[in-house]
Amino acid sequence: MLDTESSDQQIASGYKAWLSYRRLADQPGFESMAEQLSTISVFGSGGKEVLLKTAVAELQLGLQALLGKPILIIQEQEQMQGGIVLGQFHQDGSSGESFGTRYFNESSIKNAGSEGFAIVFSKSDNCLAIGAASPAGLLYGVFHLLRLIAAGETRVQDLNVAQAPANGLRMIDHWDNFDGSVERGYAGRSFLYENNRFLTTESDRMRDYARLLASIGINSLCINNVNVHHEETYFITPRCLPEIARIADILKDYGIKLFLSVNFAAPIELKELDTADPLDSRVADWWKRQTAVVYEAVPDFGGFLVKADSENRPGPFTYDRDHADGANMLADALRPFGGIVIWRCFVYNCKQDWRDRKTDRARAAYDHFQPLDGRFADNVALQIKNGPLDFQVREPVSPLFGGLEKTNQVLEFQIAQEYTGQQRHVCYLVPQWKEVLDFNTFAKGEQAPVKSIASGSFWGNKIGGIAAVSNTGRDGNWTGHLLAQANWYGFGRLAWNPELTAEEIAQEWTTLTFGHDEGVNALIIDMLMNSWRIYESYTAPLGIGWMVNPNHHYGPNVDGYEFSQWGTYHYSDHKGLGVDRTTATGTGYSAQYLGENASIYNSLEQCPDELLLFFHHVPYTHVLHSGKTVIQHIYDTHFHGAEEAGGLLAQWRTLKGRIEDGLYLQVESRLQEQAEHAKEWRDQINTYFHRKSGIPDAQGRRIY
Amino acid sequence: MLDTESSDQQIASGYKAWLSYRRLADQPGFESMAEQLSTISVFGSGGKEVLLKTAVAELQLGLQALLGKPILIIQEQEQMQGGIVLGQFHQDGSSGESFGTRYFNESSIKNAGSEGFAIVFSKSDNCLAIGAASPAGLLYGVFHLLRLIAAGETRVQDLNVAQAPANGLRMIDHWDNFDGSVERGYAGRSFLYENNRFLTTESDRMRDYARLLASIGINSLCINNVNVHHEETYFITPRCLPEIARIADILKDYGIKLFLSVNFAAPIELKELDTADPLDSRVADWWKRQTAVVYEAVPDFGGFLVKADSENRPGPFTYDRDHADGANMLADALRPFGGIVIWRCFVYNCKQDWRDRKTDRARAAYDHFQPLDGRFADNVALQIKNGPLDFQVREPVSPLFGGLEKTNQVLEFQIAQEYTGQQRHVCYLVPQWKEVLDFNTFAKGEQAPVKSIASGSFWGNKIGGIAAVSNTGRDGNWTGHLLAQANWYGFGRLAWNPELTAEEIAQEWTTLTFGHDEGVNALIIDMLMNSWRIYESYTAPLGIGWMVNPNHHYGPNVDGYEFSQWGTYHYSDHKGLGVDRTTATGTGYSAQYLGENASIYNSLEQCPDELLLFFHHVPYTHVLHSGKTVIQHIYDTHFHGAEEAGGLLAQWRTLKGRIEDGLYLQVESRLQEQAEHAKEWRDQINTYFHRKSGIPDAQGRRIY
Repeated sequence: MLDTESSDQQIASGYKAWLSYRRLADQPGFESMAEQLSTISVFGSGGKEVLLKTAVAELQLGLQALLGKPILIIQEQEQMQGGIVLGQFHQDGSSGESFGTRYFNESSIKNAGSEGFAIVFSKSDNCLAIGAASPAGLLYGVFHLLRLIAAGETRVQDLNVAQAPANGLRMIDHWDNFDGSVERGYAGRSFLYENNRFLTTESDRMRDYARLLASIGINSLCINNVNVHHEETYFITPRCLPEIARIADILKDYGIKLFLSVNFAAPIELKELDTADPLDSRVADWWKRQTAVVYEAVPDFGGFLVKADSENRPGPFTYDRDHADGANMLADALRPFGGIVIWRCFVYNCKQDWRDRKTDRARAAYDHFQPLDGRFADNVALQIKNGPLDFQVREPVSPLFGGLEKTNQVLEFQIAQEYTGQQRHVCYLVPQWKEVLDFNTFAKGEQAPVKSIASGSFWGNKIGGIAAVSNTGRDGNWTGHLLAQANWYGFGRLAWNPELTAEEIAQEWTTLTFGHDEGVNALIIDMLMNSWRIYESYTAPLGIGWMVNPNHHYGPNVDGYEFSQWGTYHYSDHKGLGVDRTTATGTGYSAQYLGENASIYNSLEQCPDELLLFFHHVPYTHVLHSGKTVIQHIYDTHFHGAEEAGGLLAQWRTLKGRIEDGLYLQVESRLQEQAEHAKEWRDQINTYFHRKSGIPDAQGRRIY
Repeated sequence: MLDTESSDQQIASGYKAWLSYRRLADQPGFESMAEQLSTISVFGSGGKEVLLKTAVAELQLGLQALLGKPILIIQEQEQMQGGIVLGQFHQDGSSGESFGTRYFNESSIKNAGSEGFAIVFSKSDNCLAIGAASPAGLLYGVFHLLRLIAAGETRVQDLNVAQAPANGLRMIDHWDNFDGSVERGYAGRSFLYENNRFLTTESDRMRDYARLLASIGINSLCINNVNVHHEETYFITPRCLPEIARIADILKDYGIKLFLSVNFAAPIELKELDTADPLDSRVADWWKRQTAVVYEAVPDFGGFLVKADSENRPGPFTYDRDHADGANMLADALRPFGGIVIWRCFVYNCKQDWRDRKTDRARAAYDHFQPLDGRFADNVALQIKNGPLDFQVREPVSPLFGGLEKTNQVLEFQIAQEYTGQQRHVCYLVPQWKEVLDFNTFAKGEQAPVKSIASGSFWGNKIGGIAAVSNTGRDGNWTGHLLAQANWYGFGRLAWNPELTAEEIAQEWTTLTFGHDEGVNALIIDMLMNSWRIYESYTAPLGIGWMVNPNHHYGPNVDGYEFSQWGTYHYSDHKGLGVDRTTATGTGYSAQYLGENASIYNSLEQCPDELLLFFHHVPYTHVLHSGKTVIQHIYDTHFHGAEEAGGLLAQWRTLKGRIEDGLYLQVESRLQEQAEHAKEWRDQINTYFHRKSGIPDAQGRRIY
């Protein structure tokens, strides 16, 4: 009945990821649960909606695999008792009673909100009811139930859950190019494109991808790189729209809206106008026409993602206009269709002179966008990277969070491990994201964590959410490093519910991916939970960042960006290192923060160790809160970190034979590379600073 | 009569280079010279040989342009008196007397040798006689006469010249790839190939190129990159040989033999054998057959150039054979046809660990090849780079010169300015080459300069000469930087006669290229003569080399190769820098030299300043022979060098209006870039060492 052989292969390659649905073992309660969940029925007459069909199919597929038995789909007319019943709250059954009234109390319905779901066991009907205000909510409810069961929950009769996503926009951004390359892609080439053709209709991969996205609550997908080159400029034209509409159709089955990155200079690039001035009515009209063309092909199109006036991309600056002029012009074109503009704040001077210590790239996003607060249309959202620079292993949180009140904001993470090991090193990023989400901005002088600003709840913004750069590609396991799937999974889960802990997410992902061996899972969770700290320990120290090879950003190179134009310097000399961003003697960046954040970062004494060199230039002999000098901290963390990287490999090797060989071996080879490469990091960083400072290691270890 | 307009355009673009043949101004002696040189006749019956036809045509073309009047070609039968008479020494005229006997004394004939020429004015016949043992010698004699006249010589009646080339092999190596790219090419793409097609029959460019080569005495040309990729492996097969034969035909008209770089693994690459083992008879037979195929298409084919077991190229090491096994196998295949193997000595470990200070790339060529002395066949020549590393702005001379007695050797220079400014900076390399040629190796404990070892005269080798990597490309002026033509010109002239001084060559080139304004020429000569020293002064100091950006090698990057696998380190720390290559405490490289060279380089006191850091690791406070500390030397040379780079631009600007605008402007823009880029060099190098050493500049100048 089930194609178990190919299913097993897909599990062992990692392709099935957290939707592996391994058959559950018999255990106390299993039989009665399996009995309880034998049938699926849909309440009322709503079963024809595509998302509801998807929900039922996914529920059947998942339960059959998990329980190892056929699950029957039963027409509502035939049976109201037993099994699982799905329904939308407002829908009436044959009795005239609505689904919501029949099964759920008011608070559950309220908690489920417009996009969430409620699950409860009805003793009177002896059935498990999944309810939602929308078909999308039902799909999320189905995946939630499957997650619970796959994770070992058997007491379905005790279930009473109601939840809604914290963020309206839960988005993944692909940096895939039409030629098949992926900017900052570490999992093979694009599975969307090759050689300026769409691959998306050639296999089931797009549908499998949509399932994975929906299962973690993603509802928005931007399918092309924010750097829109010539060929991708045609994505908003009839040359490409038919294929894009097919992708949108697949995504629609899973409740996901399609977005496109657009080229701000498209009217010029497509040779239709000689200007892209956003205040020129010909330009505004052009975008209105072009947007209508897009919506004709993709009626539920989400909107435009725009990287403008950034890293040599075109934008409104060319015409002496500002970002608000540019974004609002596009917003006008999208408004009639309900579309939105997501405008990135990654704007800085990328032609900086390394000799110039006054210009500070960290200041740029705030300096550019804070003064525009209130100028953006209500269907524009600013997409703000988590830190002021660029996804380093350690950065402070962007002070633009807290700096904007009257502007829709979207937080941007990078699941792709550009600066965190490129999916050749394991680096579980959820703990880092948690720190960002929980960071108190002190907006209005009180508790104002980033998570409530990004979601829009804090200021009552119309649009809010979290977006992240995809880490997926054509590799068999989607993410190159199998353990990097945890970041993809974790991003979706956090975007849905930022209150989940990193451990909880790791626990979920590990169980869903590897099964129910608690020893195995505990070990993998331990590896994941330590991995960010380990990666940080053997790379650039104390928040200074960079120190990577230029362009590709893999591997150590202390001076790799020191004499460049990118605004990324460590300023190390014989006596010390770090960037002075204080108000008295530095760039004044610390003053972009509110409340005590400003004074803490500005203070050499109070600044947290892990960000010390981001905010202060200190001597190597400066004593950290840890009690160590900066130089000894560098030596110790690098020796220890490389050792721990070797330890990760040793840990993993204890899993041989305890998980599928296919999963075991692919991770082992990556961990081998990491262990070796961590030594290279250790030796280059230690040697560089030992040679430069002349200060010996207190423990007399080998430095070259 | 002459197509002067297009000729003028070609002069102003730089395309005509040193064959511009500007019309000479009237001056004392001009009229009588012009009268004297009105006709050209060929002695005897030799006028049908292609090279003699070329010689006559070139002489006519050159004289017509220089003198601004038609030059008549007269049959020998008609006139023996007056004009210019060309002939081969051994040929008999109608009187039965040979050409040699009639016009030349014995010593002239001897001095002209087999490839040279003699020029003398015969009072009895009232004619200028150009004689040679071979048609090639006549062509060289013609170009010599034209050079003299173009340079202002009018007293043709006093001429009495006889000379032969010092080197049998005078070769230029193209690193052009069949796809049209040029490895280390700085003058546009290849003019030989594009997109795996031959361009050589599509225009006159190949012929124009051959003229330029012959005019400076080049007699051998290798037309493809020593890194032979898949497509170029087919150059020795019927797929490509017809087009290559056409190139060979053009070259033949100018006395130039065509060589090909071959892929040592060709039998495998072409899927004809499963091995390339040089001691496997199937492999030897394959090469014999393939070589016969080549000679069938190109009867005067020169031979094979081979980069084997170097930088990941295949070679005999794969089969546990040595370089002699590999080279001799190819030599056997070439011997029946008179062809030769040129086997490069650029062999070293390119996967070195930067932590390993025992392995020394500088030792590699000697360590690999010296033990094989005497093992190579007599139609094999080893091609040895001038220095032990790779064409740095300053290196000692390769100790392999002096280390080999029973082996044919060819000296390799690089006209392409890979590490010397990439033809964006002016760097006249002839003074560097002169130092190499004049370097006394102390072979046999006496005067044994590199020039006499390379030429083969010192040990009486059968083959000898100089090869150099081409600096030409598709750019209108051939070399990107117009002044880089002086290196191309100078290489040919030095290969012919290593006794010429750098100033003499600069004087020749300047006059031939720009004309007869002595002020203009003196200024350009001054720029050229200072340029190498200036470039050295603002780049890597005191012979340490490297400090360039990886891969493309343009621009400063002090640590660019410090933690790499390429064996190229400066080992700088807080106290000092340099590579200890002494016998007592270092790698022992200094002991590869003979006589006092070994002791001088080994001695901290005696080692010349300019090579100090190549041989010694010293503190920044070490006092040079100049009286300055190392660190102050670094600061001073970099400040001064950048200033001087600006001075070159200022000098050039005084030429505005005094030379053709086309020539003026193209050089001005390069000098502008150089002046700016020299500041970047200055600041990065000074900042790096200032930060690292902590030692202030004695003059308190701005360091960042």
